[in-house]
Amino acid sequence: MSIPSAQVIDRIQQTARRARVAAKRLALLPRAEKDRALLALADAVAAATDDVVAANAVDLARGRSHGMPESLQDRLRLTPERVAAIAQALRDLASLPDPVGEVVRGSTLANGLQIRQVRVPMGVVGMVYEARPNVTVDAAGLGLKSGNAMILRGGSAAASSNAALVGVLRDALAAQGLPVDSVQLLDGGHDDVTALITARGLVDLVIPRGGAELIQAVVLEATVPVIETGIGNCHVYVDAGADLAMAHDIAMNSKTHRPSVCNAAESLIVHQDVAQEFLPKILVDLAAAGVRLYADEAAGRAAASTGTAYLPVTDTQWGKEFHGLEMSVGVVSSLAAAIEHIDRFGTGHTEVIVTNDRVAARRFTAEVDAAAVMVNASSRFTDGGEFGFGAEIGISTQKLHARGPMALPELTSTKWVVEGDGQVR
Amino acid sequence: MSIPSAQVIDRIQQTARRARVAAKRLALLPRAEKDRALLALADAVAAATDDVVAANAVDLARGRSHGMPESLQDRLRLTPERVAAIAQALRDLASLPDPVGEVVRGSTLANGLQIRQVRVPMGVVGMVYEARPNVTVDAAGLGLKSGNAMILRGGSAAASSNAALVGVLRDALAAQGLPVDSVQLLDGGHDDVTALITARGLVDLVIPRGGAELIQAVVLEATVPVIETGIGNCHVYVDAGADLAMAHDIAMNSKTHRPSVCNAAESLIVHQDVAQEFLPKILVDLAAAGVRLYADEAAGRAAASTGTAYLPVTDTQWGKEFHGLEMSVGVVSSLAAAIEHIDRFGTGHTEVIVTNDRVAARRFTAEVDAAAVMVNASSRFTDGGEFGFGAEIGISTQKLHARGPMALPELTSTKWVVEGDGQVR
Repeated sequence: MSIPSAQVIDRIQQTARRARVAAKRLALLPRAEKDRALLALADAVAAATDDVVAANAVDLARGRSHGMPESLQDRLRLTPERVAAIAQALRDLASLPDPVGEVVRGSTLANGLQIRQVRVPMGVVGMVYEARPNVTVDAAGLGLKSGNAMILRGGSAAASSNAALVGVLRDALAAQGLPVDSVQLLDGGHDDVTALITARGLVDLVIPRGGAELIQAVVLEATVPVIETGIGNCHVYVDAGADLAMAHDIAMNSKTHRPSVCNAAESLIVHQDVAQEFLPKILVDLAAAGVRLYADEAAGRAAASTGTAYLPVTDTQWGKEFHGLEMSVGVVSSLAAAIEHIDRFGTGHTEVIVTNDRVAARRFTAEVDAAAVMVNASSRFTDGGEFGFGAEIGISTQKLHARGPMALPELTSTKWVVEGDGQVR
Repeated sequence: MSIPSAQVIDRIQQTARRARVAAKRLALLPRAEKDRALLALADAVAAATDDVVAANAVDLARGRSHGMPESLQDRLRLTPERVAAIAQALRDLASLPDPVGEVVRGSTLANGLQIRQVRVPMGVVGMVYEARPNVTVDAAGLGLKSGNAMILRGGSAAASSNAALVGVLRDALAAQGLPVDSVQLLDGGHDDVTALITARGLVDLVIPRGGAELIQAVVLEATVPVIETGIGNCHVYVDAGADLAMAHDIAMNSKTHRPSVCNAAESLIVHQDVAQEFLPKILVDLAAAGVRLYADEAAGRAAASTGTAYLPVTDTQWGKEFHGLEMSVGVVSSLAAAIEHIDRFGTGHTEVIVTNDRVAARRFTAEVDAAAVMVNASSRFTDGGEFGFGAEIGISTQKLHARGPMALPELTSTKWVVEGDGQVR
């Protein structure tokens, strides 16, 4: 951890103070004003499509000249269609209920005091993330709807795209008579991040979103509250009681539907009673889909029996989120052994059992400790959109405050409002 | 921050690993078993009254020989009546609903997936606190009921009392066939705390409870998630629209009912329109109750007019939680100035307005950023017992996860359980 200079600390603290001023205003905005602003922001983003795509081209050219892999270029790329989708996401936010002001619970006490727990914005939320520029606009929109001022720190690879997008958003906020510092973009080096995540009392929450290294660095350095997101070493366990055709579909979908994301499966674990019947076909099909296989001894025999190539699996692969077309495959002697394996290597994101045995399903969902435990469904469903939240700022893999897909309510805190008529103790 | 030796880190990590094993068992206990165990623990504590009081006498004698003030001795002291109250608190826990398994929300998605968000234990919870030995048993009981294994680190001043109490609890757990490591006590120095609060992956949550220094140290050093508790620089604001007799009662009660605790008021702020009528009598009565007064110029004139002694208030007093019979008093020109003052000096615990003006009340409760905002009630009501929670492990002054009094639900996380019949994306 490098220590930021006094100038950097001062600059970031001034940024955070401006955010606090904006946040006070945002916290009191009625829903109608926030929704009107979201629609105006959407229109502004759509109207700026050409400028945004041009700014993105600068990032892409720099990326290519630095040898950025095509998969990363694709994550970075903004087309007119993608800009339209980004604008649409802002419009969708306008139609979601306002989390601020929701009464979570409340009662009238014996002494007549009326107490209610009401959702309020967090205040100032820092977001540290990597390449995808759509996150910039999503975060700004989620922040506005939940009444929070956002300090964004995107990846340097998307610097030009992010600057263009945030410029558009701030101009649109100003045109709506709303504080421009509702959304601020940090453009300095790693010291900016360090100063942001140690600005106690000025920043209420930091959400890191990206690779394991980024998240670990933020969690270890931060002194402001943090929500960890998104490291997903997800398993599909095929139980002795599984419908094997269903298991085949779920395993294929969990691995290959979108292998770069955190809710893709990295490991396939099969009960020994069904391994011989299940494994040969799935291994052939995974390999045909381009998946590189790491197999334990029993799974290796199944692969070999069909002439499917594999490498021996080690703890390195079991413990790895591949972010691509690779998968670890093993055979276990029991449900208990599967749970133990997941307990050892899982990251607490999403764990799947395929079974028609309700005792096994109950035990798996009770004992596996993860943000999402699934019976007979693809791991790819752990997602704010799929869960019907209408938006998502990340998937929390920690236990404090939020666990699993995070949307608008997860960007709020609460406040107890107590109303009396002179009660004393 | 001192860095613990490898031996200390190893010892604490072994402690945490034992706690994790116990936690797995606790997480699956049905309510009936937990309640039966709580009653057995209560009986065991009551049966051990003589031993506990004797152990406490050792702490008290050591405290006296080190010149411990009588107020601290009183917090430390265990009498047969207090031991009975501690046992009763365990019995009370048995009658509270089990937070584990509560379905917080859920729905059936368009594709037929049934999703539900279910409360689960945190896992291993560390608690770092100061003198009062009743916290040891309360924390153990709250942990058991919420399915968490607790690692307790009480103040050294209560070492003998805590060792006796935890010994009784562990024996009673063993007699119930429950894991003794559901409750463990750390008895080493500050390095134990440092090792505990940096045991990432082994400890799920740490709750510091005590003075400002303890809490700050834990928050800054910790790499495991923390919930800050209990720093309370609470204000009573007497608005222009206040019923002044009510305001008198509320100010007196907030300051003098139990001045050592975090929900006692430290500052009295009065609107200039009612200052001349309100201040002279309350200042006389506060002084008569033994309260040392710090006054700004206008409040000072009111004090002088009645011959009441005071010292000039400075930012030092405005910013201080006195934990005793001292109070800062000032006059403001408007509700806005009162809110600004609270914004500057408050700690986000409890803030009170006394007013019959509903516009002022709405504005105060909306704009003041605190765990509890009260209209026409004593600050002393911010309390898990008063709120009807039946128990309390502390009062959170942070915004993440829990804010205000924390009881059983706040000691839980959630898990999404997703049930399908073969859904893929």
